[in-house]
Amino acid sequence: MAVKNAFYAQSGGVSAVINASACGVLQTARQHSAKIGKVYAGRDGIIGALTEDLIDTSLESEAAIAALKHTPGGAFGSCRYKLGSIHQHRAQYERLIEVFRAHDIGFFFYNGGGDSQDTAYKISQMGSGLGDPIMCVGIPKTIDNDLPITDCSPGFGSVAKYVATSLREAAFDVAAMSRTSTRVFIMEVMGRHAGWITAACALAAAQEGDPPHILLLPEVAFNEERFLTKVEETLRQYGECVIAVSEGVKGPDGEFLSVSGLADAFGHAQLGGVAPVITNLISARLGSKCHWAVPDYLQRSARHIASETDLQQAYAVGRAAVEFAIAGRSAVMPAIRRLSDAPYRWDIIEAPLCEVANEEKPVPPDFITADGFGITAAARRYLAPLIVGEAYPPFKNGLPDYVRLRNAPVPKKLTTEFSV
Amino acid sequence: MAVKNAFYAQSGGVSAVINASACGVLQTARQHSAKIGKVYAGRDGIIGALTEDLIDTSLESEAAIAALKHTPGGAFGSCRYKLGSIHQHRAQYERLIEVFRAHDIGFFFYNGGGDSQDTAYKISQMGSGLGDPIMCVGIPKTIDNDLPITDCSPGFGSVAKYVATSLREAAFDVAAMSRTSTRVFIMEVMGRHAGWITAACALAAAQEGDPPHILLLPEVAFNEERFLTKVEETLRQYGECVIAVSEGVKGPDGEFLSVSGLADAFGHAQLGGVAPVITNLISARLGSKCHWAVPDYLQRSARHIASETDLQQAYAVGRAAVEFAIAGRSAVMPAIRRLSDAPYRWDIIEAPLCEVANEEKPVPPDFITADGFGITAAARRYLAPLIVGEAYPPFKNGLPDYVRLRNAPVPKKLTTEFSV
Repeated sequence: MAVKNAFYAQSGGVSAVINASACGVLQTARQHSAKIGKVYAGRDGIIGALTEDLIDTSLESEAAIAALKHTPGGAFGSCRYKLGSIHQHRAQYERLIEVFRAHDIGFFFYNGGGDSQDTAYKISQMGSGLGDPIMCVGIPKTIDNDLPITDCSPGFGSVAKYVATSLREAAFDVAAMSRTSTRVFIMEVMGRHAGWITAACALAAAQEGDPPHILLLPEVAFNEERFLTKVEETLRQYGECVIAVSEGVKGPDGEFLSVSGLADAFGHAQLGGVAPVITNLISARLGSKCHWAVPDYLQRSARHIASETDLQQAYAVGRAAVEFAIAGRSAVMPAIRRLSDAPYRWDIIEAPLCEVANEEKPVPPDFITADGFGITAAARRYLAPLIVGEAYPPFKNGLPDYVRLRNAPVPKKLTTEFSV
Repeated sequence: MAVKNAFYAQSGGVSAVINASACGVLQTARQHSAKIGKVYAGRDGIIGALTEDLIDTSLESEAAIAALKHTPGGAFGSCRYKLGSIHQHRAQYERLIEVFRAHDIGFFFYNGGGDSQDTAYKISQMGSGLGDPIMCVGIPKTIDNDLPITDCSPGFGSVAKYVATSLREAAFDVAAMSRTSTRVFIMEVMGRHAGWITAACALAAAQEGDPPHILLLPEVAFNEERFLTKVEETLRQYGECVIAVSEGVKGPDGEFLSVSGLADAFGHAQLGGVAPVITNLISARLGSKCHWAVPDYLQRSARHIASETDLQQAYAVGRAAVEFAIAGRSAVMPAIRRLSDAPYRWDIIEAPLCEVANEEKPVPPDFITADGFGITAAARRYLAPLIVGEAYPPFKNGLPDYVRLRNAPVPKKLTTEFSV
């Protein structure tokens, strides 16, 4: 088999550990130089392929590649850009073929969530119709943890650790203040369609009755009266109430609460922010003093408090992707398989991309308590191992010392432009 | 000198390291058992003294006391409660004397910000008029860093480290997303009257041009047109714009922007949240996609990313307070004196409470750049050493292992009630 170059790109919202997957890809590819030549990264995801804007990762030092493992964000740039269907947007696919041929690319690695696996699947389908097919392997990444087949998604465990740690810390603050000041604290977390991150907030509780007292999951329709009753009960019992709310909580009408609630002085709907909506509701109806937090990007980029388990898995799926590709596997994605909860053991299996693409995995009903405001013991068993282990980055002058790559462009070979 | 008991209480907003000051007080008092008997902590600050709700810290193990050093929040409860003036609220002071006499208290330690130092000062004045005076020593604590005399305030360095770390991490995220998605990121931080925390966000930048690109300090009146021009310039130059904004930013009319901006569907003013106000402004006027974060309590309780320097200072002022008191000093507060910037050296000096109480120290003009949107090299020299060093708490099952004290009550000796 002739040596072929590889293409790697990052797609969708980035995470604290997506660069660890990149590190896994690049280090493993360098170990297989008999099969993989250079790894070209797409600048800003698939856009880099379409526009022939490739990054030559062979110009990065070993040290810089190793430092990706402790650097958050997307080192080559990411994108929110979904390829169209093959029959309606044929030009996009033809362009990709053209670029891959020009740069002798025989391996395609796409690192992202459901949409990205769909892109990888489409490219694999296109490639299998060519004489010289491209090995297409998806690499799972989503903080939302909603990919099917894989037991969990790299990126999620670190967000879970961040939100559980942050909520535990904030709850210590509220406990000290509740006598004369803040009695209700509301933290809004990401996960618009799946409540995994909200569920992970429950890990902050070391024992029954510990905060958070209420979860508002997107899987459960928000009922104002039942919610306020629960807040009142909690305040009566504990003198305080700590709440984790998903950005994606919807009312009985199916509308996002974050959209329906607030408007600015000019009447524009406020962009995001269900926590202030819930806060206003409690203040207006119960009169309690509330504080609210919206960590937003902080939660998914908090490499300083990443989960060691998550980091290992992120690296492992990057490495496995390369191993699958050089074994001639295509249209697959490395998936994490859980072998046992405690002690936590896992390995990597091969998932067919056609079964991964465009599927979403919400928090299942048996993970949610009957009242809808909490998680069950089964959910706790599932979530607990994913946040275990600390993987601190190096610090310099009191701050995490993250790497910025050179990201030198590969000289263009095509004379045609392609606009996205 | 007869052995006397001591009273210790926490006041105002808590921090990641106020319990480290408590640890300094308790461990040092235990080393001086020839002079200090038991240390009674006020449950919920001075309210515990007024209501004779005292906690017997002698019942806490050495290990539990040591664990305070790595536990955020206020271990004995705090309060937002300011004593009235002596001549108008004489009953409060008489009650304190009564409680202190009943429990043989000869030392009074009050751990808080400007208001708390005022309380400590008033009690010292009252005490000096008695036959058996109480040694009153204030212990500095405020994340706002606005206490006078002391070079910095324990609690600030850890928030500074948190916000600079978080903003650096989020900026890596924005850099990856800016091609097709978020181009503007806005983080709102605490510090209603002083912009020290906002200024500390600038430490996230490793070099000129790095994010954050714009600071909105409460010391500088917000000018909408100048701000939008600056955002546009930044977007043109860097393709992205990262902004840190103080919750206390005011418009030219002197009104908080956070109050003037948003209302819910029922017309109630939104509680807090200047970040969404700025976001809406940018979206409406420039059309850029924005994300915003409000870490709120997360920033001041983030013990997991505390500054080792801050932690050492928090402990040192607790220890020094006890040493001052047993040396017969009263109406004083241990203050941090900076001896040099680099290498950073500091020691503890004695500040008279009368000069500390009710004074606020804003960010001085020579720390703010001419355009009002950044900090100067002098500010950077001041801030840089305060975030140095990591002081990770122990972790258990993937989460910080914080201590909850027994907080057993001291049996009441008085038959009278006092309502607050």
